[in-house]
This record gives sequence, structure tokens and C-alpha cells, in this order.
Amino acid sequence: MFEAAELGHSIDKETFRREVPALREALLEVQFDLARRKQFPVIVLVGGVEGAGKGETVNTLNEWLDPRQVETTAFSAPSDEERERPPMWRYWRALPAKGKIGIFFGSWYSDPILSRVEGGKSKATLEQALSDILRFERMLADEGVLLLKFWFHLSKPQQKKRLRALEKDKLTRWRVGPQDWQRYRRYDRFRSVSEAVLERTSTGHAPWIVVDGSDERYRSLLVGKTILQGLRKRLANGAAEPNGLSGILAPSIDTANVLDALDLTAALGQQDYARELERWQGRLNAAARTGGFAKRGAVVVFEGHDAAGKGGAIRRIAAALDARFYRVVPIAAPTDEERAQPYLWRFWRHLPRLGHIAIFDRSWYGRVLVERVEGFAAEADWLRAYAEINEFEAEMTRHGLVMVKFWLAISKQEQFRRFKEREATGFKRFKLTAEDWRNRKKWGVYARAVHDMVERTNTAAAPWTLVEANDKNHARIKVLRTLTQRLEAVK
Amino acid sequence: MFEAAELGHSIDKETFRREVPALREALLEVQFDLARRKQFPVIVLVGGVEGAGKGETVNTLNEWLDPRQVETTAFSAPSDEERERPPMWRYWRALPAKGKIGIFFGSWYSDPILSRVEGGKSKATLEQALSDILRFERMLADEGVLLLKFWFHLSKPQQKKRLRALEKDKLTRWRVGPQDWQRYRRYDRFRSVSEAVLERTSTGHAPWIVVDGSDERYRSLLVGKTILQGLRKRLANGAAEPNGLSGILAPSIDTANVLDALDLTAALGQQDYARELERWQGRLNAAARTGGFAKRGAVVVFEGHDAAGKGGAIRRIAAALDARFYRVVPIAAPTDEERAQPYLWRFWRHLPRLGHIAIFDRSWYGRVLVERVEGFAAEADWLRAYAEINEFEAEMTRHGLVMVKFWLAISKQEQFRRFKEREATGFKRFKLTAEDWRNRKKWGVYARAVHDMVERTNTAAAPWTLVEANDKNHARIKVLRTLTQRLEAVK
Repeated sequence: MFEAAELGHSIDKETFRREVPALREALLEVQFDLARRKQFPVIVLVGGVEGAGKGETVNTLNEWLDPRQVETTAFSAPSDEERERPPMWRYWRALPAKGKIGIFFGSWYSDPILSRVEGGKSKATLEQALSDILRFERMLADEGVLLLKFWFHLSKPQQKKRLRALEKDKLTRWRVGPQDWQRYRRYDRFRSVSEAVLERTSTGHAPWIVVDGSDERYRSLLVGKTILQGLRKRLANGAAEPNGLSGILAPSIDTANVLDALDLTAALGQQDYARELERWQGRLNAAARTGGFAKRGAVVVFEGHDAAGKGGAIRRIAAALDARFYRVVPIAAPTDEERAQPYLWRFWRHLPRLGHIAIFDRSWYGRVLVERVEGFAAEADWLRAYAEINEFEAEMTRHGLVMVKFWLAISKQEQFRRFKEREATGFKRFKLTAEDWRNRKKWGVYARAVHDMVERTNTAAAPWTLVEANDKNHARIKVLRTLTQRLEAVK
Repeated sequence: MFEAAELGHSIDKETFRREVPALREALLEVQFDLARRKQFPVIVLVGGVEGAGKGETVNTLNEWLDPRQVETTAFSAPSDEERERPPMWRYWRALPAKGKIGIFFGSWYSDPILSRVEGGKSKATLEQALSDILRFERMLADEGVLLLKFWFHLSKPQQKKRLRALEKDKLTRWRVGPQDWQRYRRYDRFRSVSEAVLERTSTGHAPWIVVDGSDERYRSLLVGKTILQGLRKRLANGAAEPNGLSGILAPSIDTANVLDALDLTAALGQQDYARELERWQGRLNAAARTGGFAKRGAVVVFEGHDAAGKGGAIRRIAAALDARFYRVVPIAAPTDEERAQPYLWRFWRHLPRLGHIAIFDRSWYGRVLVERVEGFAAEADWLRAYAEINEFEAEMTRHGLVMVKFWLAISKQEQFRRFKEREATGFKRFKLTAEDWRNRKKWGVYARAVHDMVERTNTAAAPWTLVEANDKNHARIKVLRTLTQRLEAVK
């Protein structure tokens, strides 16, 4: 969930100065509309790691918004009065009325996460708390509340740097105490617990927006624009969507994209390739034949740009496996039978038995890629798909299946070269369709969809591996090595 | 949840013979419409106790419905193939296609309940399973599936009788094995676990319909009519409600009502009343002053027919308590401020501190009583309120609050007498409004709403006490005694 927030997002001073006045004006305008129409309340929930600029952002928002229609509540240790009521009472009493914006600095997530990280509470207790939270947020959505949940993130080195910087400055020194450094030492545990919490509570109607907290201008602009977009969407739908059941995606405000972070020049010479291929195919074969793996199984997902080399990579895997124990499942447009079922049905039917491997050539991610971009799925449907997919994959991994997901990435130029090559080569011509050229025209939109997909579905148990695929040798070996190592890790 | 199914519902032979042909015709008709339009699939889920007629009802349905559009799947022990996939796989593969009806005999509820009752699995494991089920059913609803969940119930004596009867008959003897008697011996545990499961999973979009399994004609007719009603409602809404988010209530097919089961002649002479009043007020006072209670607190809810004597009963409680530690909260129409908040907000704000008692003169149940009957709330909103109320009360009881809920019941004649008396008595006249007379005209509709309310919200931790209130003395003492005993039970 956090990888996309570690790309080093930033907004330069010039852009910021140019954009802020317009943003502030637009925010005031929608806020005015909200207050006038009084149709629904808005909750802006602010959580995340220490030092990621939560407080600063809350201050900025209070500066930008009309303070008469905003109530900010900071939740720290509960008061006497609050302790003597059920835990949710403090949040109920702070709920904003219709037409108002409530900024919650800290929330119903703080205690469950901290009691798991620091308080020694069990995983089951956390699960129970999350289940209650899911019901509560569903109730809020049913009651029409627009809930925008922001999670401010910093990588471990960034957090250290930030705490140091705060300490150095006389004016901000007071903000860093021993407790902050204590929390920093628990960074890894905090990260893994909160990642699990975000995965489980990022629903279609109330998804988490993960904010890269390292750049002040970026985070302010992102939060402001997300609020603007969320409000505009709800105000536009008005009474048509009283339940507020479809959430939003963070707008793209800079060019940082998980795909752009890849070094597509990565390559492997022919000799190295031959040697590595033999090595990893041998290890893969062995890993798939252990007694441990016989009690597990694996699901391998291939997604990628058109002509990125999915088929070739799959064949290199298949060549290493015993045909009785794997199956390649090509996913094309759904059949009539499949269309008459819930979306995930056509993937459930292909799940492998224990000890077997199912290799999906394209997959359930079509929902948030082609179906999103081409408008084949309604927005509410693909927005809720992220959570449903995470749940689907969690059911598989809990059952013991190893989930390995690859995105094969090529550059736009390389794709052009390959398309042309396909046109020129007789036996490859069938692989190129008019649709491929059409998709290519939407390169940027697809890139955005891939970015959101990775951000929302890169879970601890089912992580994405992004593969630099301009060089086929490099791509194939990276795929083989990743898969092998994941299978070898099976106890 | 089960009390309403223990009223001894029954349908006489004559009525059954008369109604079945029309029901069958109507079922075939909607089924035809469903198959033709292919807009959504229907799942009829059948669960419950042994011997409550689940199998017979499934057979009856198969007889009544067009078999070409129905697929019945009985889930017993999973097959090899199923065991080697994630637990939900077997249900996914059995999902009916759009336009079809799938009858699930046994379901995703069976294993979580049985592993808790018999398999020694922990409460946390059950909670996790329920949380997964809630997501799964939400996904089904989002995908448009109409899910009708029937729970077949028998009281313990009824189950014993039924198993004995089956054993006696040569033709059915084979159906009762040692396992059934073993389960019978675990009846109480099974009942309490399944009650908790039903409470938690009876959502607005997929509520449980509890079926009194003791009368064959009743249960067949109820299930048939519920399916008919559910299908008609969805087909009427068509594309307008693609998400199928609003569930249904079981239709009322006989006159049995929780209120009719009360003996309203119960009365207490003036001398007995005086003695009992002193006794219970004394004990109540003591119970509210213990150290144990100081760490808890209580919420007392009064609902009842107009002029049933809520005020008088509340005053008898108040007289026994220290004014610093209780508060009477009269609930009238919501204020503007309250209307601008989620429905339950105006009740949350009045929750008592530890050691305190809040007495609600009318309550959150207004949503499923007056708001339902008068159409102040949309159907989807009051239908989801049952689950939200159960959750609200569960949050209170988990926090330690003792929840005591009273319904004060009088007969229609007695109400008339009291209305007339109020009209005649100067200082009581203000208590009678035109609205009271209006409500009275809807006596039957209110009775139905009360019945549904008790069925859906009579939970183990927050049970209803129905009070026969034609005689005020009897009513006041029953209220005092019930409240006192609940507080005395606090450790």
C-alpha cells in the first residue's frame, strides 16, 4: 500500500504558488455550496506516521477553508468523560452536521493500531476492532456521510531525517520527544500493522488515500485537491447518490508513477541469459517438487503492457514445470456463462488444487485496468473491486496458496517497435489487433490505472513485482527468479 | 431472535389447500419473468436446527418451482477437490447464474457454527469467519444477487418431539442417527452460538428470516411467500436497484404475534402492589449502589402502545434511585441539530457515564416503529436499522452497560378506555393528542412492526421484556422486578 507513496513525490515552489490560489478559491466555493445545500456532512480523517506532516496539513486546511464551516477535533488520550462511555462515543459526539466539514486528527484507527503495535493486544482483538470499524463506516456511508481517509506516510529513512530536522531547528525542537524516537524504533512493526489495517479497511465507499508526507507542498496540494474532487463529485450526484457508496481515488497531481520509477534500460546479455535461465529453471523445478509445496500451491498473475512479453515469460516458466501440476489460464473477454455471474466467479473456477500452479495470462485486474479505462465497468463497480480483489487474494493466501503478481513494463517506444515488428513478421501478425493500437493511444490513462492498481493492491501477502521488460532476457530472468524465490520460501 | 418463532405458528389444512395453488402459480410466473429478464440470480439459503423441516421444505420448493431454472446444492462434508481449495470455493462454484434460483441446503454458515459448537474453535475464530461472511454477502449484494436466508428453528422440547416422531415411523426412522441425538444434547449451546451468528449477520441487505419449523404447512407457505415477495420486489425495482441493497421482511401469513401471546388479564391487587412496590424499590436502590454497578451503568428503554403507562412505570423507577445517578431522556421528534446527523447520533449523546442510569422514554426503536409505519423513513433505511441498532446496543453492552428494554402492551379496548378517561380528566387532557387517535387506527400495522422489532432485536445481551400493562400495578411491578434482577446480576 505504501510503495506508491515512496516514489519521492514533489511539487516545485513555482507550481505550488501558481496552483494554490485557484485551489483555495475552488475549495471555498464547494464549501459554500455544501453549507448552503446541507445535504451531507464531510469527515476528513487524518492518520499516519509521526513526522509526516499531519499537523501541518491540518493547519493548512484550516487556513484554506472557511473556518465557520469546519470543526477540527484532535483525538489524543480520552478524557474522563470519554473513558466512561463506549469507545466510539467520542467520535459520535464529534461528528460534523450536514453541510459541515469535520477534520479528525486521529481517529477510531489510532487505538486499534497502537494497541497492537505497542500494547501487546492480540491479532484477534485487532480483527474484531476492524470488523467494528467496517460496520461503522458502512453506517456512515449509508447515512450519507462523505468520508475521506488520509494516511500520511514516510519511509523509515525519511522519518529519521525528518525527526532529526525537527530537532535541529530551535523553533520545532519541542515537537520531538523521546516517545517519537521510541516509535521510530518500532517503525517496521508499525508499518506492517498499519499496512494490514489499511488493506482491510480500504473499501469501495471509504478508501484510504495514502499521502507521501515527505514534501510539504505535495502533501498539501494532494489533500486539498482530493477534498475538492470528493466534494465536487458528491455535490454533483446530489440526491442521486444519497448513500455515498462509491469512493474516490486520489487525483494525480504530479508525474510520479510507479512505472516511471523503473529503469527500463536493465538488460542481460545472451550468454548471461542462457546461464541464468538454466539456473533458475532448475531451481524452480526443484522448488515446485518439495513436500512443503505439495501442501500449498501457487497462483501466478501476469499483467503488462500489450506486447510486453507475457507469453514468452510464461513459456519459460512452463518449461521448468511438470505439465501435470500447472495450468495456464488465458483470460479473454468473459463468456456468456461468465457474464451471468459475479465478477470474480470466472477466476474462482480456475483456482488450483494443492501442490498445483495456476498461471493467469491476464487476470481479475482487468476490472481496474481495461474495464476502468474503456468504461466497461461502472465507476462504483471498479472502485469497489480493489477491496474485493484484496479479499479474494487474502482468501487464497490464507488457504496457503503463494500469490505472485507480475506487471511487465515496456516503454511506449519499445511497444511501437514491437508492434511494427509483429506487422512485418508473418507468424506474429495474428498477435497484433486494431485494439492494440487503440489501447496505445490511451497510454497515459493506462499508466494511471496501473499506478492506482499497484497502490491499492500491493499487499504484504500478495505483492506486485514490476518487471522492466524492454529487454526480454532481463524480464524473463527476473520473473523466474522472483517466482522461484517465493516458492523456495515455502516451508 | 428465536422467540417469535416459538409462538406456535400454524396454518390449518383448509387454508393451506386454498392458498397453495395460487402461490405456485405466482411463483412460476415470477420465475418465468426472472428467467426471461436474466437480470440477477437468486440464492435461497436454508439453515437451522435438525428436524425443523429443512429437507422437506427444499423438496417442496423443488416441487413448486420450475426445476429447469432451479439448482439445489446440498453442502455436507467437503469433497477432496473442495478441501484443496479455499473454503469459499465450493460456494462460488455452486453460484446460480443470472435468471436462475440456487437453493443452498447448508451454506457458509454451517462450518463456522459447528466448529464453535462442537469443534472447540475459539470465539475469535468465529468472529473472523463472520467478518469474512459479511464481506462476501456484501459483495454478492453489490453484484446484484438476491440472497434470501432462511433459518429453521425448533424449541428444545419441539426438537425432542420431532426426533422421537421420526424414530417411531418406520419410513423415517433412517433419518435419525446417534449424531442427531448427540446434537440434541448440545441444543442450548447450538442455540446460543447460532443466535449470536444470526444477530451479527442479519444485515439490511441480507437479513435472516427465522422460520418456525414446527408446522409443516406454515413453514412451506412462509418460505414460498417470502421467495415470492422477495422476487417480486426485486423484479419491480429492476435496474433501479442494481445493488439489491435493501432486504425484506418475512410476510405475515398467520395471526401469531408476540403481543398476542401475552396474557393481558395479569393483575395485582392494591395491597399486594403496595408490598411488592416497597420490596422491589428497596432492592433496586440497593442494586444501583453496589461497587460492582459503579463500574457499569445501565440503559433502560421504554416503548409501548400510547397510554400504556410508560410515564408511570418510569416514575416508580425514578422514585427508587438517587437523582444524581439517573436521567430520564424523553425522545420526541428530532431537533434540527439532530436531523443534521446520522440517525443514532441523538441517542449516543445521551449515553450515561459509568455507574449512571439513562432511562429512555421512547428511543431509537422509533425508526422501526413510527417511522416505518408512517413512512417517515425510507424502507431501505428502516430495514438496515435493525442491524445498526443491534450493533449500537452491542457496543453499549460490551462497554459494560446493562441494557433493559421494555415494551408495555395494552389491549385495543383498554387503550380506548384510557383515551376516554384522559379526555374526561382535566390535568390528563394534555397527554392525549389527535396523533394518538390516528395511531390507534393503525393498530394492526403497529402490532406487526412490534413483532418484527422483537424478532430482529431481541438479542442475548439486550433482550426485550414484554410487559402486560392492562393492569398498571402488574406492569409497574414487572418492570421494577425485571430491572432490579438485571442490575443485581451485575458482578
